Amino acid sequence: MKRFFLFVATLAAALAVGCSTADKVVYLADFMTEDSARDAVPAVRAALEECARIDADRLVLPGGELRLRPEMATEKYQFISNNNESLKRIAFDLVGVEGLEIDGNGTALIFTGFISPFNVENCANITIKNLSIDFTRTFHSEGIVRGKGKDYLDMEFPADYNIDFPNGVLRFRDSEWTTYQYSSMLEFDSKLREPAFRAYDYWLWNYGVPAEKLPNGLVRIHHKDLTATIGNVMVFGARARYNPAFTLYKVDGFTLQDVTIYHTGGMGVIGQLSHDILLERVKVTPPEGRMISATADATHFVNCGGYLQMIDCLFENQKDDATNIHGLYMSIDKILAPDKVLLGWHNSGQFGVDFIEEGATVEIVDNKTMMTIDTRTVKSIKRLNKLYNEVTFTEPLPEGTAEKNVVATDDYYPEVLMKGCRMRGNRARGILLGSRGSMRIEDNYFHIAGAAILLEGDGNYWYEQSGTRDLLIKGNVFENGNFGSRTWGSACISVGSGIPEREQSRYHQNVRIEGNTFRVFDPRIVNFYCVDGVSFTNDNVIELTQPAEYKYLDNEYRYFVFDHCDNVTVDHPLAEARWEK
Amino acid sequence: MKRFFLFVATLAAALAVGCSTADKVVYLADFMTEDSARDAVPAVRAALEECARIDADRLVLPGGELRLRPEMATEKYQFISNNNESLKRIAFDLVGVEGLEIDGNGTALIFTGFISPFNVENCANITIKNLSIDFTRTFHSEGIVRGKGKDYLDMEFPADYNIDFPNGVLRFRDSEWTTYQYSSMLEFDSKLREPAFRAYDYWLWNYGVPAEKLPNGLVRIHHKDLTATIGNVMVFGARARYNPAFTLYKVDGFTLQDVTIYHTGGMGVIGQLSHDILLERVKVTPPEGRMISATADATHFVNCGGYLQMIDCLFENQKDDATNIHGLYMSIDKILAPDKVLLGWHNSGQFGVDFIEEGATVEIVDNKTMMTIDTRTVKSIKRLNKLYNEVTFTEPLPEGTAEKNVVATDDYYPEVLMKGCRMRGNRARGILLGSRGSMRIEDNYFHIAGAAILLEGDGNYWYEQSGTRDLLIKGNVFENGNFGSRTWGSACISVGSGIPEREQSRYHQNVRIEGNTFRVFDPRIVNFYCVDGVSFTNDNVIELTQPAEYKYLDNEYRYFVFDHCDNVTVDHPLAEARWEK
Repeated sequence: MKRFFLFVATLAAALAVGCSTADKVVYLADFMTEDSARDAVPAVRAALEECARIDADRLVLPGGELRLRPEMATEKYQFISNNNESLKRIAFDLVGVEGLEIDGNGTALIFTGFISPFNVENCANITIKNLSIDFTRTFHSEGIVRGKGKDYLDMEFPADYNIDFPNGVLRFRDSEWTTYQYSSMLEFDSKLREPAFRAYDYWLWNYGVPAEKLPNGLVRIHHKDLTATIGNVMVFGARARYNPAFTLYKVDGFTLQDVTIYHTGGMGVIGQLSHDILLERVKVTPPEGRMISATADATHFVNCGGYLQMIDCLFENQKDDATNIHGLYMSIDKILAPDKVLLGWHNSGQFGVDFIEEGATVEIVDNKTMMTIDTRTVKSIKRLNKLYNEVTFTEPLPEGTAEKNVVATDDYYPEVLMKGCRMRGNRARGILLGSRGSMRIEDNYFHIAGAAILLEGDGNYWYEQSGTRDLLIKGNVFENGNFGSRTWGSACISVGSGIPEREQSRYHQNVRIEGNTFRVFDPRIVNFYCVDGVSFTNDNVIELTQPAEYKYLDNEYRYFVFDHCDNVTVDHPLAEARWEK
Repeated sequence: MKRFFLFVATLAAALAVGCSTADKVVYLADFMTEDSARDAVPAVRAALEECARIDADRLVLPGGELRLRPEMATEKYQFISNNNESLKRIAFDLVGVEGLEIDGNGTALIFTGFISPFNVENCANITIKNLSIDFTRTFHSEGIVRGKGKDYLDMEFPADYNIDFPNGVLRFRDSEWTTYQYSSMLEFDSKLREPAFRAYDYWLWNYGVPAEKLPNGLVRIHHKDLTATIGNVMVFGARARYNPAFTLYKVDGFTLQDVTIYHTGGMGVIGQLSHDILLERVKVTPPEGRMISATADATHFVNCGGYLQMIDCLFENQKDDATNIHGLYMSIDKILAPDKVLLGWHNSGQFGVDFIEEGATVEIVDNKTMMTIDTRTVKSIKRLNKLYNEVTFTEPLPEGTAEKNVVATDDYYPEVLMKGCRMRGNRARGILLGSRGSMRIEDNYFHIAGAAILLEGDGNYWYEQSGTRDLLIKGNVFENGNFGSRTWGSACISVGSGIPEREQSRYHQNVRIEGNTFRVFDPRIVNFYCVDGVSFTNDNVIELTQPAEYKYLDNEYRYFVFDHCDNVTVDHPLAEARWEK
């Protein structure tokens, strides 16, 4: 039914292009006033109201540069998965819109302060294209290491960071005295423009580091065992992910084309409970002079369905993964009756992202093996608050269901195509794949500090649903990955699922790895556990490199590791080989 | 009309008491399960649902001790004036209820974590009585000063504060690892159980102090110029006021009787946009072993009307004033048309407290003199977000209206009676009076660190509407006040309004001071400016004390100061006298 609707919508859109004189077009320029130079948000609100009023087909931005600020923006409290809930301001807030294209016309959107660029909610058939997004002050902070000593670094920061030291603790503000809190530090290599070799996160649990200004103008920051290479960039991670660039919630049909996200305070694109998403020539990349692009994942898709495509995209230097496609698990915190459970969230990034609907089929999963016990149909739901739902099923719970088991929907699995994308320079991993739909990862380039492709999913820590069923990894280049923190992965392609009892678990299924090129200084090509069905064909090429920048010093030395896997075929000379330093 | 409604409601309630067998009574005990011992909140929710279902007259608590926790509680985002907006959990959430009495039956409500005890919203004729409120872990923190040196103190904290020092900064948590942030330090006198003589707030803008654990088990905290008397208590003020004990919003008729608030994370009672409130024998007081009661004002009333009474109450050792009764000013940030303005909030404690309604009469006020220019009637309102409203009037703005002028409603003025109340031991001031209704302050006892009675109000900083019209201060005892920070007042009874241009301003009117006793070591009895009509009759007694604890060392030496006042009569021998040390 949904498919049919989208087909009709697409057909209508195609016809509309064919008869473009019939398009109802709104021009943002018509709503701009003399105040718009400082803040175009009121004009954007007015233009979107006009779009709704006339049921417009297109909103055209004026080109050039637009400044946008939070003061006059739409406000709403949002629970956005894997970002931070808060009362947010939103520049372009599309709610209940069908069949609108926003043509940026090359406009550079320059935001100031805590504001989310785009929110698309309960919409269908939306296209946004031809624009870029940046902020006058980044949500993270960057400084150059100019000196070092035991437990300290001497840093040079941009003058406009407006630094001071209340109570002897470093504070970053912008020229308007807005504070930009930070919660971690991570060293990036200035020349390679990527996380420094084997650098790891310094977590700042109190959101501050003791610091003082030196007579030479540098800032000395103190932290136990703090060290870095002089000349490198220390990145102070933004405390929270308040302002993703594009938030999709219950959207059917979304296209993002020729859009560049230089910066945003959260993820680049976060889709939840949405279907049929296409990202084409979307770039997440920092501008000249900065190291970091988005402060979190470039893209992330949670409980999405339909067809999810990322084509010819560039995801680089974001502060977390390139993408993560998964579902949500709620935990059975209490069995209230034979047919009734109290479901709770245990990952604060998921609080309030209600996904269970009346009539939905859910799988009930053993949190220790991550294997599905059975499915049930939801009869009714009572939401207590952002933490808890009481859910009654149409039948009693399956035998063996226990508290701490987890529940996910059984029908939010996108087909995935990722093709021609380039991923590099970011913190952590490349792509995390957790859909049960068919997934094809083809002709991409990975130069990733951790695992390039990771199969995650667990019911005890992150509570992210995974369990691949049909994954093709074909024709990609994996170049010198796994140079970052050892916590970011165990091979180019690996499983990282939290499965306490692996013996009985075959959580992932059917992974085919064909015709890829692995140029590696680190011999860890595949590291799988709990997978049923793996083929690594002999058209995969493994080239051993010896780059000056990285050195493999670790104790692991197998190219391929399979633990608790069935039906594994590795048709390659190195299948059983050991690495010799 | 409202008056009539309340009369009828009161009559109905009286009849109901007369025929109590007809009362519909719900007993909380009937909804309690074995889990209620750990957390009675689900039982409270169920009991309140039952009250709504049967339109109950009374809800009776079981007596003894009840534990209440946030996990399963009702949730809503609240803008509560002079407290902190947030997504809150609420234990007793009364919405749209008419004619309910909650009889605590002597129950001690013991809360854990970030939860608001009572929220009463869009209700009429509600009574809550016979209960007490405390928390297992206070929102502020207290420690005893055991040692001192240049720029540091050595502190002893309770063991259950669960202290650690991430990045060398002091952190307080409870036994469940919930963090309790702090933003200030203030020294309290252990023997006198009040703010230490002339102690002032150390503001901690970064919400932390550098600290470390000493070998002797004490905690050394560092801050420039930090000092205190050994044996005194240093209070770490809670960072935010998230959880008032009683929040009233659009309530008509509210009675709180025989209720003790030992602690809460915000104000004790905060009423906004409500009418006819009675507090009788309400105590805000710390339990044995703690210095601080509520972390902010004991009571506070914003844009309230009808008759506001506080009778035989005790307000002591709260972290801010005993009460503050005022209206709200929004600022004219932009004149959009002859009849249309953009109104903005500029005090973050007022964000989102929308008070302007269609059809309301508002006064338009010169922010420099605080004098009313004229009134206008509101034709329409468009809320942009928590910061801004666009307001159109039925007529053009009065001549002379300028941007930065302020706007308040012209009809939210309670009559006030405060009688038989005892106020002492708290930070800052006693009572701030900003209603234009008739106010009688009779037979109270004040021993206050700053001014006992303060007439505030301004349109440039706090944006709190005041302008007294009829104030009687009679039969009170003012005992050795003004011993705290010099910023908390300039006399026992004083004006503290922010009025940039005083020459033309007579912001306050008609203050009569009769039959009071002033026992003072500090000669500052009255310090007024911009008042028209003052009488200080000769039945007021001024006794000069020479307590060992306090010493008046300052340069001011007039008992009575009147600046830009008219019609002043001081019938007292010390009227023109100067203080001789």
